[in-house]
Amino acid sequence: MISLWETLCLAMHTLNHLAEAIKAELIGDPDAVVRRAQPFDTAIEGDITFATAPAYLARLNESRATAIIVAGAVARVDTNLLVAKDPKLAFARAINLLHAASYQPAGVSEDLIVGEGSSLGEDLSIHPRVTIGRGSVLGDRVTLHAGVVIGNNCRIGDDTIIYPNVTIYDDTRIGSRVIIHAGTVIGADGFSFVPDEEGHQTKLLQMGRVRVEDDCEIGANCAIDRAGFGETILRRGVKLDNLIQVGHNTVLGEDTVVAAMSGFSGGTRVGRGCVIAGQAGTAQHIEIGDGAIIAAKAAVMKNVRAGAMVGGMIPARDYNAWRRSQVLYFRLPEIVERLKRLEKLVEQKERA
Amino acid sequence: MISLWETLCLAMHTLNHLAEAIKAELIGDPDAVVRRAQPFDTAIEGDITFATAPAYLARLNESRATAIIVAGAVARVDTNLLVAKDPKLAFARAINLLHAASYQPAGVSEDLIVGEGSSLGEDLSIHPRVTIGRGSVLGDRVTLHAGVVIGNNCRIGDDTIIYPNVTIYDDTRIGSRVIIHAGTVIGADGFSFVPDEEGHQTKLLQMGRVRVEDDCEIGANCAIDRAGFGETILRRGVKLDNLIQVGHNTVLGEDTVVAAMSGFSGGTRVGRGCVIAGQAGTAQHIEIGDGAIIAAKAAVMKNVRAGAMVGGMIPARDYNAWRRSQVLYFRLPEIVERLKRLEKLVEQKERA
Amino acid sequence: MISLWETLCLAMHTLNHLAEAIKAELIGDPDAVVRRAQPFDTAIEGDITFATAPAYLARLNESRATAIIVAGAVARVDTNLLVAKDPKLAFARAINLLHAASYQPAGVSEDLIVGEGSSLGEDLSIHPRVTIGRGSVLGDRVTLHAGVVIGNNCRIGDDTIIYPNVTIYDDTRIGSRVIIHAGTVIGADGFSFVPDEEGHQTKLLQMGRVRVEDDCEIGANCAIDRAGFGETILRRGVKLDNLIQVGHNTVLGEDTVVAAMSGFSGGTRVGRGCVIAGQAGTAQHIEIGDGAIIAAKAAVMKNVRAGAMVGGMIPARDYNAWRRSQVLYFRLPEIVERLKRLEKLVEQKERA
Repeated sequence: MISLWETLCLAMHTLNHLAEAIKAELIGDPDAVVRRAQPFDTAIEGDITFATAPAYLARLNESRATAIIVAGAVARVDTNLLVAKDPKLAFARAINLLHAASYQPAGVSEDLIVGEGSSLGEDLSIHPRVTIGRGSVLGDRVTLHAGVVIGNNCRIGDDTIIYPNVTIYDDTRIGSRVIIHAGTVIGADGFSFVPDEEGHQTKLLQMGRVRVEDDCEIGANCAIDRAGFGETILRRGVKLDNLIQVGHNTVLGEDTVVAAMSGFSGGTRVGRGCVIAGQAGTAQHIEIGDGAIIAAKAAVMKNVRAGAMVGGMIPARDYNAWRRSQVLYFRLPEIVERLKRLEKLVEQKERA
Repeated sequence: MISLWETLCLAMHTLNHLAEAIKAELIGDPDAVVRRAQPFDTAIEGDITFATAPAYLARLNESRATAIIVAGAVARVDTNLLVAKDPKLAFARAINLLHAASYQPAGVSEDLIVGEGSSLGEDLSIHPRVTIGRGSVLGDRVTLHAGVVIGNNCRIGDDTIIYPNVTIYDDTRIGSRVIIHAGTVIGADGFSFVPDEEGHQTKLLQMGRVRVEDDCEIGANCAIDRAGFGETILRRGVKLDNLIQVGHNTVLGEDTVVAAMSGFSGGTRVGRGCVIAGQAGTAQHIEIGDGAIIAAKAAVMKNVRAGAMVGGMIPARDYNAWRRSQVLYFRLPEIVERLKRLEKLVEQKERA
Repeated sequence: MISLWETLCLAMHTLNHLAEAIKAELIGDPDAVVRRAQPFDTAIEGDITFATAPAYLARLNESRATAIIVAGAVARVDTNLLVAKDPKLAFARAINLLHAASYQPAGVSEDLIVGEGSSLGEDLSIHPRVTIGRGSVLGDRVTLHAGVVIGNNCRIGDDTIIYPNVTIYDDTRIGSRVIIHAGTVIGADGFSFVPDEEGHQTKLLQMGRVRVEDDCEIGANCAIDRAGFGETILRRGVKLDNLIQVGHNTVLGEDTVVAAMSGFSGGTRVGRGCVIAGQAGTAQHIEIGDGAIIAAKAAVMKNVRAGAMVGGMIPARDYNAWRRSQVLYFRLPEIVERLKRLEKLVEQKERA
């Protein structure tokens, strides 16, 4: 049951209003009221949920939810239905509408350490133990959590949220409405060394910076390196999962999403609206076209054209079966030779 | 030689007592005394060591150690022997007995920042520069190192140790005797976006939390995401190495161990007592049964049944050999076609 | 155009002097002056740049740079040329000469927390919010950024720079001129557990430490574990990219470079001057000889001899092509069987 406290805290919406807000068509009672979004199995009266998997669609009548978001016409049910083209999108919107807390400025902690020439916007939420260097500019309604360190000459846009223990190196540009999760490092030196005459590695000074445009979200413990010259760029709306590496001078296009543990070598250029699955990696200076999809663990060694879907890994199977296959994998050149020889022989017979 | 200072600091045990404590059978002098555990090659008088590899077993007589843990009967040697079913386990116990420092509360630093309504247990070790939010509850004998940030409404159990610069987001549940290494992030948002009509990514608000049960250990710079709804769970005794990703709503079973750089996509369910080797990854909603073993770098794309051992990667070989094989790898469909054609031809000949 | 301010800030060198400093041969005006190093496309008057790719070499005359570093004789051009054996190395040196700021001690923040018995060198740059334990020793001209936590009994050599939110555990040895990027963790426990009689994991106490020798550079959010006994070692001049795992007791040889997201299991021994590409991994106790090259994503399961180049992954290709190949990959044992049978049949025919 929803507690009284929850009831008071939560927004309340009629289905009529909700349908409009999430761009769905209502089949049912326009005046019914919902207060929470919940997964199918835990939704009760007062909740909205969604069903797309056949297993859930078969159980619509069992649901105690006040309303269910579905993709299209379904067999007659008693429940209120909200028909949306993309039920998951509609549900995401319903969650936001019902649960997203409106921003309340927490103020600026007295404990803030801030360098000369930095300027701070209005209505901030600066938690204790934040450090800001010299000449940096923060917009309005910025949230900085404990342990955030911002270097010199940085720009942080309005409504951006930076979680604890994030490090932003000097000269970084962060847009508005950006979310950066804990432990992430933005602007460390790109990895660029040349061996000298004695084999010692000589560092190429990294003089560029990082630009993270508006509406990006960056997961926990990522590392986004500054450019050698110029900029490493995350364009508007890029979303990164956790533990992602973005090498120097890489550019990720608008609305591209990248799953956890993927890495981009220096100078990679990824188009807009791409989907990069987990643990993928790119060679240096690779170009990936708009809307391309890179499968999990892929090693992208050549350019990928727009809209292409590429992959390249061995899915896990029975250990012994895999061992047998991989031993033979290295004998493939020999296997092909034997096959060719046989083909020739059989052909000669044919002719004879 | 063991210094006087070390001698004074270290626990001292007779072999008699030690044998009992580590569940081994003593062959030798029950009153001999050991003070340190050491690897085979550096062990001297006063030390206990262990030998399982044949190379070491062949050199038992060379050892200057006071006692050696072995797996079973060995040729007559002068050294004291401790025979244990699992010598490595017995050695682990000996190290703990001889070297584990007993807990000494360091007290609570005056520098602690703690929010309203939080409560702290007894005999704590809270180092400077720790930040705790509102409504959080710490048990007894908790150690928090510098730079630890704990959010609102968290629970931290007794005897738990959290190393520097760890971030614990709001609402996280951490059990007793848990160890969390530096830089790890627990409770950041799960990675969950749906593209809208214009291709912009809409965030699914992550309203769940993370639960880490008793006796877990989590390595450095890991990222364990909160659930969308409900809980991401590490069950009792889970051990994670460094740089591991645990996606939203994943559940890792009791006593499961995960090597470095492995990642679990959202909704993965791993059974108890599983072993996940390094750099492995799972697709979303995969189920891995109890006691399964996942080899290094495996891409787990299908459910794995209990007790199974699965793998799927190409071990490194000579670069040119590998290049030849991988070119042919993509010609495998053609190779199989040619083979089939040949088989048919030969068969026809046979019949003719 | 270079601004007046930039002009005043920058070092200024005649080509004569520069040629000597970067070990190049000058073809052109010895008294011409350069102030900046820039990439080919953005270089203007007063800049030095370099050209090695044919695309750039074909456009030498288009460049507005005052001087261009090239590898050898080129067609007659108007521009001043600096001929160097390794133009990239010469350019790296030019960047350093023109742009590297000389060290200016920023002093020791009053906010420093330092334990008993620790000693600090001269001319330090200790930013606020740094924490140092007991009995640690810092050399001269060390830079510690905000949020750095250094444990007890550590040694940090002269001229070392540690970026924000880095954690150094007790007993760590860091050499001189080392650079450690933000979020990295050095000295956390090695991952070493043995299951006991009930399947619970027993921890092997990690009693060793980490030694990072002179001139190493370590990227952001790496994890370098202490040894079980003895030392985990990065030898002089090792360069690590971001998000790298170095397991307990691993030794990386002098001048070895490791690209992002690679991981070394416990006890790996890597020689000097090796190149490890991104997302590679090694099995436990692997030895990699001097000068070996490990390709991206390689799974090193066997020792690699000095100078060898090894690889082992499936480069990304068209998704459907890859799917077809990987299905057949697991049928390789059967394919080889069919091939063998055919060979035998054809041979019999031949003889008949």
